[in-house]
Amino acid sequence: MLERFPAPQIRAQATDILLAWGLDPAHAQVVADRFEFADLRGIDSHGIALLPLYARLRAEKRINMRASIRVIRDAGAMALVDADHGLGHPAGTRAMQLAIEKARANGIGAAGVRNSNHFGAAGAYAALAAEAGLVGLAFSSAWDAAIVPTWGAEPRFGTNPLAIVAPSADDAPFFFDIATSTVAIGKLRLAQLHGRALEPGWALDMAGEVTTDPAVGLASRRLTPLGATPKLSSHKGYGLAASVEVLATMLTGAAFCSTREHGEAHFNVGHFFIAIDPAAFRPPGEFERDLAAMQRTLRRTAPAEVGRPVVAPGDPEAAALAERASGGIPVPDSLLRQLREIAGDAGARWRLGGQ
Amino acid sequence: MLERFPAPQIRAQATDILLAWGLDPAHAQVVADRFEFADLRGIDSHGIALLPLYARLRAEKRINMRASIRVIRDAGAMALVDADHGLGHPAGTRAMQLAIEKARANGIGAAGVRNSNHFGAAGAYAALAAEAGLVGLAFSSAWDAAIVPTWGAEPRFGTNPLAIVAPSADDAPFFFDIATSTVAIGKLRLAQLHGRALEPGWALDMAGEVTTDPAVGLASRRLTPLGATPKLSSHKGYGLAASVEVLATMLTGAAFCSTREHGEAHFNVGHFFIAIDPAAFRPPGEFERDLAAMQRTLRRTAPAEVGRPVVAPGDPEAAALAERASGGIPVPDSLLRQLREIAGDAGARWRLGGQ
Repeated sequence: MLERFPAPQIRAQATDILLAWGLDPAHAQVVADRFEFADLRGIDSHGIALLPLYARLRAEKRINMRASIRVIRDAGAMALVDADHGLGHPAGTRAMQLAIEKARANGIGAAGVRNSNHFGAAGAYAALAAEAGLVGLAFSSAWDAAIVPTWGAEPRFGTNPLAIVAPSADDAPFFFDIATSTVAIGKLRLAQLHGRALEPGWALDMAGEVTTDPAVGLASRRLTPLGATPKLSSHKGYGLAASVEVLATMLTGAAFCSTREHGEAHFNVGHFFIAIDPAAFRPPGEFERDLAAMQRTLRRTAPAEVGRPVVAPGDPEAAALAERASGGIPVPDSLLRQLREIAGDAGARWRLGGQ
Repeated sequence: MLERFPAPQIRAQATDILLAWGLDPAHAQVVADRFEFADLRGIDSHGIALLPLYARLRAEKRINMRASIRVIRDAGAMALVDADHGLGHPAGTRAMQLAIEKARANGIGAAGVRNSNHFGAAGAYAALAAEAGLVGLAFSSAWDAAIVPTWGAEPRFGTNPLAIVAPSADDAPFFFDIATSTVAIGKLRLAQLHGRALEPGWALDMAGEVTTDPAVGLASRRLTPLGATPKLSSHKGYGLAASVEVLATMLTGAAFCSTREHGEAHFNVGHFFIAIDPAAFRPPGEFERDLAAMQRTLRRTAPAEVGRPVVAPGDPEAAALAERASGGIPVPDSLLRQLREIAGDAGARWRLGGQ
């Protein structure tokens, strides 16, 4: 069962909970903005569904809910932001805004974030650049080791997401936002829920062997890098996850996933953002026009199966946005119950109906 | 059979052929440099083995061997270079040098190239940044459509390579250089040569169905994006290939692969380069030290198979360099015969022995 709620109602509920947790009001708005971006685009795992995770990390005192972010370096086309161990959204948003300003002035700009935490959907940050008419790139580490290097038996990287979003003359932007694992851990949970075997190549057991048993994969928490197996070039996904780690943690001074001690108070997640101004490279409008032509060409690709058309990157998210902006955001019963409990514990007003 | 030659001898032979083709002497040196980088690191497909391809494109008048490259935009932290339809190496090298200069001054720098051609190994350009102490990123389009979008039956992108190289306190840099297809077309040729079936997921037939027959895959020239199949998240490799196209062609004004007319005189390949200065973000030496720690951690990952250790990205290339710098570069007989014919046709001196 799932009930639908208008986006502003979901947003108000999220904001109330975050305020009750002690977040700076401006920060709470920013977190709610990034949630809403994901929820409206069908990226359900990265919207308000994150609140139960954040509630747990708050209880464990991993996240500083009263964080005060600081720009600690700002020179030329770069900046570095310290997130003060708060949620990643306010610092990530500030960093991408700095990258955008710098790109407008210099053609390209970059900003990193250290001492951060989970920041939601990488694409929500890259999209800030695209909304400003720029190409945005976003990279993040993750504190929870999950991706196993090719030929390995132990995880070394989080699911290290990367996103690239670009403005188009088409209604939908170019939107690309992935974890660098073959699949997210959520796909294993879904398989278990439905009593299905895992696709061979999604997950490994404790010895690094491919497993198709969801219970084994969920217990080992060992995911393959994109490419799945050595024969299908998993070394490429491994290198991609490592590249994200280099940008998001080495450049910023955040913690490299495998070096974190279990007992450390904070995770020190790192993010890295790049914005590029197409108008610095080409006459105004040409980039957006060419990108729209590419999107059309991709959509017109002859399909391999009748009735299964090729989509351009970003089309599924644009379709979800069109539908949910008017039809509301679906919230499963189980999540609704968790949110109600979280709101109750925090002393926040309950806005999502029921008795 | 393969014979080994010292790198300087290979380099002199390549330079002689390029000069006989009419290349500007400085450009010929640069092309030979980029060849040597690949040949010394075991990236055999992207060194002098490219000369037969370039000889064919020269005969077809696709490449301007007397190209004169021009910087057509240079502002703030960005630049744009016109390759004048020459080989991609001189313009690509000039662009990465500009990105490096701009990163030193601004923290990050970027440069694009339009009206270019094949530029060899993307990693050879990203490595120029790493040799200068910076993180280098390189992206390129390719004129030959090969990658089929997820759910599609027609190719829409070239094998669109991307590379990230970063300086380390370790002897070996972090080196990551991939095509965004699951495998390169060369793997299909090797399978055919050895009478082996293709791994399911490498290639598609004309209808977009997976084929394991090397002859079918070579005839269709339809490669899967990294991820191989929809169940193993080929949409991620598809989006990655598309992202490379956005950076390398949309930002630069190069031709989007699928829009090229077969009859056009030149290919208008595009490249895009980014350099980032770690010293702008962190105190000198910290980035390189942390990166070396990551490399060590990756190498110490428990292996899934006894005797098959986990390697850090770049370790295979560093091992090849150590061996070939003293032991020479192996050249198969068949390539040697082709090079000899090319040298003869061009009127270049033959320096690689034989009668």
